[in-house]
Amino acid sequence: MLSKKSAAIHSSPVRELLKFSKEPGFISLAGGIPATDMIDVEGIDSVIKEILAEDHRDVFQYSVTEGEQPLRESIAVWSKKSGLTLDPQQILITNGSQQGIDLLNRVFLEKDDVVLVERPTYLAALQLFDYTEAIVEELVYQDENIDLAVLETRLAAGGVKMLYLIPTFGNPTGRVIENAERAEIVKLAHRYQVVIVEDDPYGHLAFTTERRESFFSLAQKLYGDDHNVCYMSSFSKIFSPGLRLGWLALPEKFLMAIIVAKQALDLHTSTLNQHIAARYISSGRIDERIALLKETYEQRRDWLIESLQRHLGDAITFNRPEGGMFLWCHLKSGINASRLLEACVMEKVVFVPGEVFFAENPELNSLRLSYSMLTQERANEAGVRIARALQAISS
Amino acid sequence: MLSKKSAAIHSSPVRELLKFSKEPGFISLAGGIPATDMIDVEGIDSVIKEILAEDHRDVFQYSVTEGEQPLRESIAVWSKKSGLTLDPQQILITNGSQQGIDLLNRVFLEKDDVVLVERPTYLAALQLFDYTEAIVEELVYQDENIDLAVLETRLAAGGVKMLYLIPTFGNPTGRVIENAERAEIVKLAHRYQVVIVEDDPYGHLAFTTERRESFFSLAQKLYGDDHNVCYMSSFSKIFSPGLRLGWLALPEKFLMAIIVAKQALDLHTSTLNQHIAARYISSGRIDERIALLKETYEQRRDWLIESLQRHLGDAITFNRPEGGMFLWCHLKSGINASRLLEACVMEKVVFVPGEVFFAENPELNSLRLSYSMLTQERANEAGVRIARALQAISS
Repeated sequence: MLSKKSAAIHSSPVRELLKFSKEPGFISLAGGIPATDMIDVEGIDSVIKEILAEDHRDVFQYSVTEGEQPLRESIAVWSKKSGLTLDPQQILITNGSQQGIDLLNRVFLEKDDVVLVERPTYLAALQLFDYTEAIVEELVYQDENIDLAVLETRLAAGGVKMLYLIPTFGNPTGRVIENAERAEIVKLAHRYQVVIVEDDPYGHLAFTTERRESFFSLAQKLYGDDHNVCYMSSFSKIFSPGLRLGWLALPEKFLMAIIVAKQALDLHTSTLNQHIAARYISSGRIDERIALLKETYEQRRDWLIESLQRHLGDAITFNRPEGGMFLWCHLKSGINASRLLEACVMEKVVFVPGEVFFAENPELNSLRLSYSMLTQERANEAGVRIARALQAISS
Repeated sequence: MLSKKSAAIHSSPVRELLKFSKEPGFISLAGGIPATDMIDVEGIDSVIKEILAEDHRDVFQYSVTEGEQPLRESIAVWSKKSGLTLDPQQILITNGSQQGIDLLNRVFLEKDDVVLVERPTYLAALQLFDYTEAIVEELVYQDENIDLAVLETRLAAGGVKMLYLIPTFGNPTGRVIENAERAEIVKLAHRYQVVIVEDDPYGHLAFTTERRESFFSLAQKLYGDDHNVCYMSSFSKIFSPGLRLGWLALPEKFLMAIIVAKQALDLHTSTLNQHIAARYISSGRIDERIALLKETYEQRRDWLIESLQRHLGDAITFNRPEGGMFLWCHLKSGINASRLLEACVMEKVVFVPGEVFFAENPELNSLRLSYSMLTQERANEAGVRIARALQAISS
C-alpha cells in the first residue's frame, strides 16, 4: 500500500551501522556525531535553570512558525562575527538542518527537476531528493576543483533547478570550495537563475585561521537581497544535536513559501529548545565551546592520521581536512570498502563505506572515517583493528 | 523559482488570525490552542529538574529515529488505560501529530491518489494533501452520520488510497463517530485495502464518561496486526504544545517505511523533550492534569454557550460538543462568516470562518469558536462584541 517512491527508499546504511557502534567493545568511526564528552552539559544546564527561574510559561506553549524572536536575533548578532550579515526576519528556525534541506526540497523541487550535487555528497540529502523524484547529477571536477566551464555548459543546457553544496569541510570529504571559485559559482547560478543551497553544519569547526566567505554573503554583496542563495546551518555539531535545532537564512522573496511549508510540516520547532539555544548563544558560551571543539577535533584528526599511517601504511590514502570531523580515505585500488567493513565488524570497528555518498559511479574503494569521538588510545586501536581486517580479506 | 505546488499554497488563515489574537485587548476564539493558564508549569519544571539532577548527558546527544525507548514504553503503558493495547515497538515519536500527518502523507500518497476526509475537516491536513497533489474528496453524510452505503460505493469505484478521520471531538466540529459506525468503516477500509488515518489529538478531553473505541483497536481485534489503521495522537492539547511531541501507532508492515521517512525529514525528535514527556507520563502527572483540563474546558464551553445564547439568540446555532475545545456554529443563513470576522476585528474579537475547513462547497455561514482560553468574563464579552459586529453588518 506504500507509495512507489516510499517502497523504493531504504534505511540509511549509516544509521544501520550506528546500531553496531552502540554495542560494547566497538569502536565507531561511522557517525557524523559530535563528541559526547564535549557536549557542554554544565553550560546547557545553567541556561535551562535560568529559564526555569524566570516567568517561562510561554516556553511550553505554541509558538510562531518562523521561530522565537530571541533566537532569531541572537543568531543574527552571532553570525556577524563570522561575516554573515543577517536581519532576524530572514532567519527561519528548523528541527536541525536536515529539516532545512527537506523544506527547500519541498518548495523548490518538482519531479524531474535537476539538482547538481558535489561528488561525493551528504547521503541524507540524496535520500530527500529521491522523495521528490528529482534527478540528481554530480558536478564535474578538474583535479580537486569544480570544473566551472562544464558547470556553465550544464546550466546553459537548462533543467537545473538547484545546486546543493556543502562548501566548507564537506561531508564526507572534508573538502573546501575556495573563495574565488565560490564567487564564480554564485555568478553562474544567478545568471541561470538556479537556487544555491549552502549547507554549512561544519563551517564553525575550522582548525586554521583561514576564513571562507559564505555563498550567501557573496550573493548579498553582488545582488543585494535579490539573490538565490539559501544558507543553512545547524547547532547539532557545535552545541547539542539532541535539541534538534538548525536554521535557514533566506532572501525575502523565498521566505513566505518556506514559512508556509514549515507550518504544514510541523507548525514550529520546540519553543523550549529555542529559548535554551538563544540564551546559550547570547551568553557567549557557544564561542568558548567552539574554541574547545576546534582544538579537540584537530587533535583527534591527528591521532587518527598517525594511527592509519602507523598501522596501514600505503594501503590507505587520505586528505588532511582543515576542519570538520571526517577523514575521506581510499584503499589501495581493487580493495572494496564494503567488503573491508564486513571484516571490520568482526574486529569490532565500524566506518561508512564511501560508495553511499555518490549519486552515480561510486568509488568502491573509498571510505569515510569520523574522528570526532576518538581518544588517542581508541584511534590507535582502530588502526590496529582495520589493519587486521584488511589482512583477513587480503590473505 | 518556487515549485508550482508551493507557489499555489498560501499561509493558513488561522495563523494569520492568530497574529491579531496576540494584540492587546483582543479576545481570540480562533486558535486550537490549549489554555496557557492550564499548562502544568510546576509539574513540567519538576520533571526537568529530575532529569538535570541525574546523569543526563545523552539527552543532548543524537537519538534514534523511532524515538526514545522510555517514552515509547510510557506511552504503551499509559494507552492501555484508554483501551489501546500497543507494543512500544509500534510507536513512532513525531514533532507533534502535525508531523505524523506529513509522514503518512509522504509514505502513502502519490499525485492524484484520492483521500477521503470528513466534511468539514482539519485545515492543515488539507494543506498537506495539497503538497502531494492528492485529490481530496469529502465523505457524504446522512443526517449527522457518514453515509456508509455511499462510502462503500466510492471505495468500490477505486482510486481511494486513504481515509483521514478525526473521529473523536473532531476539528472543527467537535463531532464524534460512534462505535457501531467505526466498526463498519474499519471493515470497509479493510475490504477495499484503504489506509485509515485516525487523528486523535482531542480524544482524551472527554466531558462525559462515554468511551469510544479507537479505529486502531477495533482493527486489531478484527485483523490482528495485519490491519491498515494508522493511529496518531499528540501531547499538545493535554501536556505542552511547545515541546512539539506527538506519536504514531502503526501496524508492523508500515513501520520501516515511516521510520525511513522520518529519518530523511529530521533524523529524530528532540531527545530532551522526549525524556521530559516520558517522566511526565510515567509519574502519573498527565492523568491529574487531564482530569483538570476536562472540568475546565467543559466549564468554558458552557460559558461560551451561555454568552452566545444571551447576546446572539437565534442569530447563531451550534452543537454542544461532549469534549475537545471547539464550538461549531452557523449564522442565520445569508450571513457570511468572513464578512462577520472583518467586523469582529474592529470589535477586537476573532474566530475562524468555517469555510477554510471544507475541501469543497464551503458553508459560508459557518464558523469555529474555540473556548479553551476563555474566562467567564471574556466569554461574555466575546458574545457582546460578536453581537455588536453582527449588528454593524446587518444594519
